Amino acid sequence: MNQDLQKERAAASFNPELLTHVLDGSPENTRRRREIENLILKDPDFHHEDLNFLSRSQRYEVAVRKSATMVEKMRKFNIADPSEIMWFKKLHLVNFVEPVGLNYSMFIPTLLNQGTTAQQEKWLLSSKGLEIIGTYAQTEMGHGTHLRGLETTATYDPETQEFILNSPTVTSIKWWPGGLGKTSNHAIVLAQLITQGKCYGLHAFIVPIRELGTHKPLPGITVGDIGPKFGYDEMDNGYLKMDNYRIPRENMLMKHAQVKPDGTYVKPLSNKLTYGTMVFIRSFLVGESARCLSKACTIAIRYSAVRHQSEIKPGEPEPQILDYQTQQYKLFPLLATAYAFQFVGAYMKETYHRINEDISQGDLSELPELHALTAGLKAFTSWTTNTGIEACRMACGGHGYSHCSGLPNIYVNFTPTCTFEGENTVMMLQTARFLMKSYDQVHSGKLVCGMVSYLNDLPSQHIQPQQVAVWPTVVDINSPDSLTEAYKLRAARLVEIAAKNLQTEVIHRKSREVAWNLTSVDLVQASEAHCHYVAVKLFSEKLLQIQEKSIQAVLRNLCLLYCLYGISRNAGDFLQGSIMTESQITQVNERIKELLTVIRPDAVALVDAFDFQDVTLGSVLGRYDGNVYENLFEWAKKSPLNKTEVHESYHKHLKSLQSKL
Amino acid sequence: MNQDLQKERAAASFNPELLTHVLDGSPENTRRRREIENLILKDPDFHHEDLNFLSRSQRYEVAVRKSATMVEKMRKFNIADPSEIMWFKKLHLVNFVEPVGLNYSMFIPTLLNQGTTAQQEKWLLSSKGLEIIGTYAQTEMGHGTHLRGLETTATYDPETQEFILNSPTVTSIKWWPGGLGKTSNHAIVLAQLITQGKCYGLHAFIVPIRELGTHKPLPGITVGDIGPKFGYDEMDNGYLKMDNYRIPRENMLMKHAQVKPDGTYVKPLSNKLTYGTMVFIRSFLVGESARCLSKACTIAIRYSAVRHQSEIKPGEPEPQILDYQTQQYKLFPLLATAYAFQFVGAYMKETYHRINEDISQGDLSELPELHALTAGLKAFTSWTTNTGIEACRMACGGHGYSHCSGLPNIYVNFTPTCTFEGENTVMMLQTARFLMKSYDQVHSGKLVCGMVSYLNDLPSQHIQPQQVAVWPTVVDINSPDSLTEAYKLRAARLVEIAAKNLQTEVIHRKSREVAWNLTSVDLVQASEAHCHYVAVKLFSEKLLQIQEKSIQAVLRNLCLLYCLYGISRNAGDFLQGSIMTESQITQVNERIKELLTVIRPDAVALVDAFDFQDVTLGSVLGRYDGNVYENLFEWAKKSPLNKTEVHESYHKHLKSLQSKL
Repeated sequence: MNQDLQKERAAASFNPELLTHVLDGSPENTRRRREIENLILKDPDFHHEDLNFLSRSQRYEVAVRKSATMVEKMRKFNIADPSEIMWFKKLHLVNFVEPVGLNYSMFIPTLLNQGTTAQQEKWLLSSKGLEIIGTYAQTEMGHGTHLRGLETTATYDPETQEFILNSPTVTSIKWWPGGLGKTSNHAIVLAQLITQGKCYGLHAFIVPIRELGTHKPLPGITVGDIGPKFGYDEMDNGYLKMDNYRIPRENMLMKHAQVKPDGTYVKPLSNKLTYGTMVFIRSFLVGESARCLSKACTIAIRYSAVRHQSEIKPGEPEPQILDYQTQQYKLFPLLATAYAFQFVGAYMKETYHRINEDISQGDLSELPELHALTAGLKAFTSWTTNTGIEACRMACGGHGYSHCSGLPNIYVNFTPTCTFEGENTVMMLQTARFLMKSYDQVHSGKLVCGMVSYLNDLPSQHIQPQQVAVWPTVVDINSPDSLTEAYKLRAARLVEIAAKNLQTEVIHRKSREVAWNLTSVDLVQASEAHCHYVAVKLFSEKLLQIQEKSIQAVLRNLCLLYCLYGISRNAGDFLQGSIMTESQITQVNERIKELLTVIRPDAVALVDAFDFQDVTLGSVLGRYDGNVYENLFEWAKKSPLNKTEVHESYHKHLKSLQSKL
Repeated sequence: MNQDLQKERAAASFNPELLTHVLDGSPENTRRRREIENLILKDPDFHHEDLNFLSRSQRYEVAVRKSATMVEKMRKFNIADPSEIMWFKKLHLVNFVEPVGLNYSMFIPTLLNQGTTAQQEKWLLSSKGLEIIGTYAQTEMGHGTHLRGLETTATYDPETQEFILNSPTVTSIKWWPGGLGKTSNHAIVLAQLITQGKCYGLHAFIVPIRELGTHKPLPGITVGDIGPKFGYDEMDNGYLKMDNYRIPRENMLMKHAQVKPDGTYVKPLSNKLTYGTMVFIRSFLVGESARCLSKACTIAIRYSAVRHQSEIKPGEPEPQILDYQTQQYKLFPLLATAYAFQFVGAYMKETYHRINEDISQGDLSELPELHALTAGLKAFTSWTTNTGIEACRMACGGHGYSHCSGLPNIYVNFTPTCTFEGENTVMMLQTARFLMKSYDQVHSGKLVCGMVSYLNDLPSQHIQPQQVAVWPTVVDINSPDSLTEAYKLRAARLVEIAAKNLQTEVIHRKSREVAWNLTSVDLVQASEAHCHYVAVKLFSEKLLQIQEKSIQAVLRNLCLLYCLYGISRNAGDFLQGSIMTESQITQVNERIKELLTVIRPDAVALVDAFDFQDVTLGSVLGRYDGNVYENLFEWAKKSPLNKTEVHESYHKHLKSLQSKL
């Protein structure tokens, strides 16, 4: 092991193994996770080429091959529990995304949720066995978030009892579905259903797109890859254009809505349940944010402990760059954020399962808050993680820019999280809609519950944004609970400002919708403050559950840093509401610097506790065996540009170049 | 032309051509720039493949071929003036960086600055004709910013009158030099000079690394490509390891320092002049920040005018996404920033040339301030641009993530600017060193001049950070001059806080160096505030030079938005110093929303004025001919994954996959 890292570990104030148990939920979970991860780490079938050295077509091919192996092994190892599948996949997919993923994550679940028993009998077995490889085609070239705007039509023809699927315009071409470009032979297509001359809105249809056996596009189908992207190199995100393409009536998923053979439309009983999938994916993405930020911190902090550079005291050996205050100020607040998001992610998962239980019992009462919370937290955590990964990368200087760090790949594969499954600004505005509704409810005399219950106290707090002379709340900057109160006041104040500005605009404009748009910057800020409060609250509540003193102490410092850093960066909000005084803000800034020093000796152990066994696969800088520079040199030598053919081809150009001059 | 864009242009309040003249400096400059750009745009030799569809090796080959063509054409067209070379290259290099670039930008200039007449005679002609292709090798695997830490040695052997170049450790391997990996056959190597048993520090040596004719590495030289990176795919950044490799004494560049045949060292007269190159490159990078942010804004704003999505008023057609307040709030402050940086870039260029004149007259008095200012502004503008490009990309939603937008390439090729040519945090600390020196000077009763002259007023302003009850300065939020004053007070306050905290630490610690490290977060914040003030000041001063009323009006709004947005995002700083009141901050936030509405009709014309003729080459979304979606579909069809071979190869895997299940 690297000597610097060895020293760091010896100096830690706690045993990282115990913290890993906290993160996994229990020692047993940690054991089982490692067991599954080791199935992959020790299996030669999964030892793969460094994808950084391959072209996109090669990466796609490797990914398809690995997808196959993965399906095979999961059966062999009997891995079926969703979280176990996730551990297995996450490690397997350390560096790439899988083209057949959507068959399992979208095609089969949609079939199960929206297909009749007969439809499930017809398609389920062959899609589980990958005879049918399905994807889910919703987004169109011209239409993303706004579902009502989708243009693809499915017109019922009672004479032949078929639906005619059509892409009437260039903007209606299906665009982005994963695995559509090359991999899939079927797609669940979302289209506007038209029968008996009337449009009934979006419905789902099973559409064969390629011929079984030859895998060639069927007549009437134009399908292909949408071209290179920032990341997701291994994924064949695709396009699909249908020209009056006919499918049997039975291919419409009819568990809820139906079209009878004569064309009569039977509408579904309820639309609310379609909420479920979105809420699940978004709450999963909160966990993904935590995971990716933790991984980026692991690489950057390990490298900062190994990298020696420049001088603090003249004449002394070059210090570890982790000893520079500016480096600590870049990395430790992100480390604290990663921990905060780990706990938010765990809470989301837990809440989702609890409410899902309720839903299956017919109780939908908590769904609106959960829906609003997942939307906002998905946006809040993914935005923060997005900038955080890049901050980690740049904290590694030049080497961070090389693929040897693994950080560029983490970034390019994470960043779509900000724009997919609900674009983040749209998500924040959904949360804002719930906040405004809750505010109105309180205003009309009814109490609200859950995370927004602080709004109940609003009238009694007399929050008056313009008023300066209010005596400040006494905030104890060393108490996570007191800081949570401060964040609560900030959220309450920003929700109230947004609500009042919205009211003012409503009075001035005739339309509530126009007023909404003209207040949307305030609304997003209110949602952000609400989500920030939730994160702070969950982190400080987590502290109470930790028994082990050494772990509690170190997490408490991280929690304080997370709270104080947020106050420092948003000092205006805390000053304006008279939540804190100017001298308290000065104290906050001083305390942050102290905390950097306090956390410093534990930094490496804190990232070790994330227990990323796979960091070594994707990052030379994140490894901790041997000498980081020797590893780097070995890695670089394998660059394709160092092959003899490239040399010869270049030499030819060089001669022709010289001959011209 | 696209209809939406046509409408936008018709509605603009000013003629963008006139604003282009302002940006170029004069109508004549605009004319000449376009003339040169058209040489490339209309020349079939420069019409190139879409690099997004090529592998890295292919991209490198294309780049080498183009480099050759470029050198040839520049001679043919007689392009020799530095800014004309830049226009020519920038357009030619729309999407890529050139492997032989360093021969012209570093090898030849260093030879001219540091080589004797005899040395210039020996190497200049053949390097201009690319018989010798040179690069500049300074950075080592283990050493970046800290030059004294470099380990490569050049030991003089008087017996043979040779230098023995050696890479004693793995960390001493030269790492990163552009064009070193495959392209160059010579390198100027920076090494610790040892003669007569004594080390004299870094000196420059001309080192042949590959055999002329065969282009094979010479014995004793290990050289190659450092592997794939986030961007710069076309550049063969390289490594170089030398094993007791001998070069003649005459290969040390001896214009300043010398080693006599017997090994006697003769030291240079002055070291100050080496400042020059760094200052030049960094001031150039300020302009690069402006250019890249302007380009990202051009793409995102044009696309936002063309993209229709969702609904503001129910039942009405989908609005242009540029009509959403949240979209305006993402893009217009960045547009204002791009204009601010354009003027900062022009000022830096001008100042550099003026001071360079002074230097050539022997007057070095302004060099320290210029050095400090370029360091800070390089960091300030590149950090802002870095996050700004990504904000523009994400403002384009899913399509921003595709290479069709051109934005991922702009980002990955820009982002190294934050870590190279002086890592940004190190740069900010250099500026801080100058600020602290100036503060001390004022404190000891001497006046300072230039951009820091506001420090002269400090004692009279009685800035007392802790004091709340001070009557606020009357800031007129509609006056750029008054807002500049506010930024000045903020900078003065943060410089003072950093200086006082530094003093306190010096008292508590024994060493000033340790104190410096423990104050460095404050020092960076002081530098940022100083640079922000400079940007605001230059923008508002620029307004006074504009004659044309319509141009003045629109730039004034952008300047106000730039100033007010910065205050809103850093409200804590302005409140804490009692520079502004809480109600003024509320007014600032309201005024920003008004300005978004005011700027909206001019947004497209404002990016048109940047006059990027080349955006169309690199970005489907930034083009304005035809239908953006049709262009996108045509682009995607060319994806290599849509080739028949890929289909067949996949089909083979698919069968083997299915057979296993």
